[in-house]
Amino acid sequence: MAGGLELPLRVYWEDTDAGGIVYHASYLRFMERARSEWLRGLGIDQVGLRSREHIQFAVVDMQIAWKRTARHDDLLVVTAEPRDCRGASFAFLQQVRRDGELLVEATVRVAAIDSNTFKPRRLPAELTGLFA
Amino acid sequence: MAGGLELPLRVYWEDTDAGGIVYHASYLRFMERARSEWLRGLGIDQVGLRSREHIQFAVVDMQIAWKRTARHDDLLVVTAEPRDCRGASFAFLQQVRRDGELLVEATVRVAAIDSNTFKPRRLPAELTGLFA
Amino acid sequence: MAGGLELPLRVYWEDTDAGGIVYHASYLRFMERARSEWLRGLGIDQVGLRSREHIQFAVVDMQIAWKRTARHDDLLVVTAEPRDCRGASFAFLQQVRRDGELLVEATVRVAAIDSNTFKPRRLPAELTGLFA
Amino acid sequence: MAGGLELPLRVYWEDTDAGGIVYHASYLRFMERARSEWLRGLGIDQVGLRSREHIQFAVVDMQIAWKRTARHDDLLVVTAEPRDCRGASFAFLQQVRRDGELLVEATVRVAAIDSNTFKPRRLPAELTGLFA
Repeated sequence: MAGGLELPLRVYWEDTDAGGIVYHASYLRFMERARSEWLRGLGIDQVGLRSREHIQFAVVDMQIAWKRTARHDDLLVVTAEPRDCRGASFAFLQQVRRDGELLVEATVRVAAIDSNTFKPRRLPAELTGLFA
Repeated sequence: MAGGLELPLRVYWEDTDAGGIVYHASYLRFMERARSEWLRGLGIDQVGLRSREHIQFAVVDMQIAWKRTARHDDLLVVTAEPRDCRGASFAFLQQVRRDGELLVEATVRVAAIDSNTFKPRRLPAELTGLFA
Repeated sequence: MAGGLELPLRVYWEDTDAGGIVYHASYLRFMERARSEWLRGLGIDQVGLRSREHIQFAVVDMQIAWKRTARHDDLLVVTAEPRDCRGASFAFLQQVRRDGELLVEATVRVAAIDSNTFKPRRLPAELTGLFA
Repeated sequence: MAGGLELPLRVYWEDTDAGGIVYHASYLRFMERARSEWLRGLGIDQVGLRSREHIQFAVVDMQIAWKRTARHDDLLVVTAEPRDCRGASFAFLQQVRRDGELLVEATVRVAAIDSNTFKPRRLPAELTGLFA
């Protein structure tokens, strides 16, 4: 099965809220960046998939726990570790860490959908092959 | 126990992505708006709690399922239905609907934390009383 | 010429940053909401324009001054006042106020572009007619 | 005077809208990232400034032109070129480019404000010295 990915990223003002910490939904943006880089690293071109085959990916399910807070200017690492692949969806374990300490952890399921109808589609073969 | 809340909201360009649908993390922003309005409706002033008692709320756990897509310009309803209350956290069932159709559903657990140390705090009595 | 629009809105956590105030770019989102409601109020359906005529609007120029800060939970009013209309673009004066006090002011120019090529298009007649 | 900075960045789903392009306000987030990295590169620690001296920066004025559209997955470069420095504010020329082509250009004025009162403050000497 394809390996995982680690993406370092910096916390900017845009990611924080007036509570003085990273806004909880910002972590979903961070996790999406890591999944996009995981796909790119495997040679899967999301823009091309959409324009040529009318397939795009959509998050369908997430279980997420915010365990510790991150702050403005922190340097974080976001991981995307593939877990399983069914006909129309695949799953990741994703973590956000700072200096090795676990801040946020999620299990995320992503499905393929049609770019015109938004109905489920089978995953592209180039992706399912990676989980074989 | 305190009743729930329904918040209508419009989908603007800011909420969507190039996939032509509402960006998955935007629903967490919508759900936070509904929880904030639920608190306001019960007379709980988040700004005052923070400045006077150094208590703020933080989402600690969420199980969320995106079942159907919303689109630009859609008129949605977001609900916040309180479920249970422990010493340091309380939970909601939250749904996003369009014309009665369920699009997104989540169970969300929110904790009280100290605004300076970000350590857990007991929930304010004015809140736990609502769950009695 | 068509009249202006006033849109009330609440500041939520999502709009703020760790500086304790509304993040500067959030005001552009607020202003876009007011322009969208202005169009809707005049019967101009952005989703229909895009699907039927492949026309969408894009901001091309903005002069904006942030004069005073807004805070979490503030109730704001955002205005959209149409100013002029050329063949391919139209302009607004937009203000964000709190209790009548001016916080942010901008002049915004919006153009029509083709949804496929992103090249300039003439404004739809239903819009230019409003400026006649 | 201190030199400028170039920050490469990738466009993710979070940055786009249903028009199929980068949402106009996302460029303000990109530009803030470049200004933050410019400050960091000069050894100015925004978090420390705020906690020790109660000084933070706020954008007060911007003139911005969106000339061409960026798309999902594009690799962009954002620049921050310091221009002038007065007692309480400093200015940048900022550009967003893709493969050398200019997409968005802005002149941005940033002021120092007090973190408690949000009133203007003199710029820290470590910053004004850079413009000498």
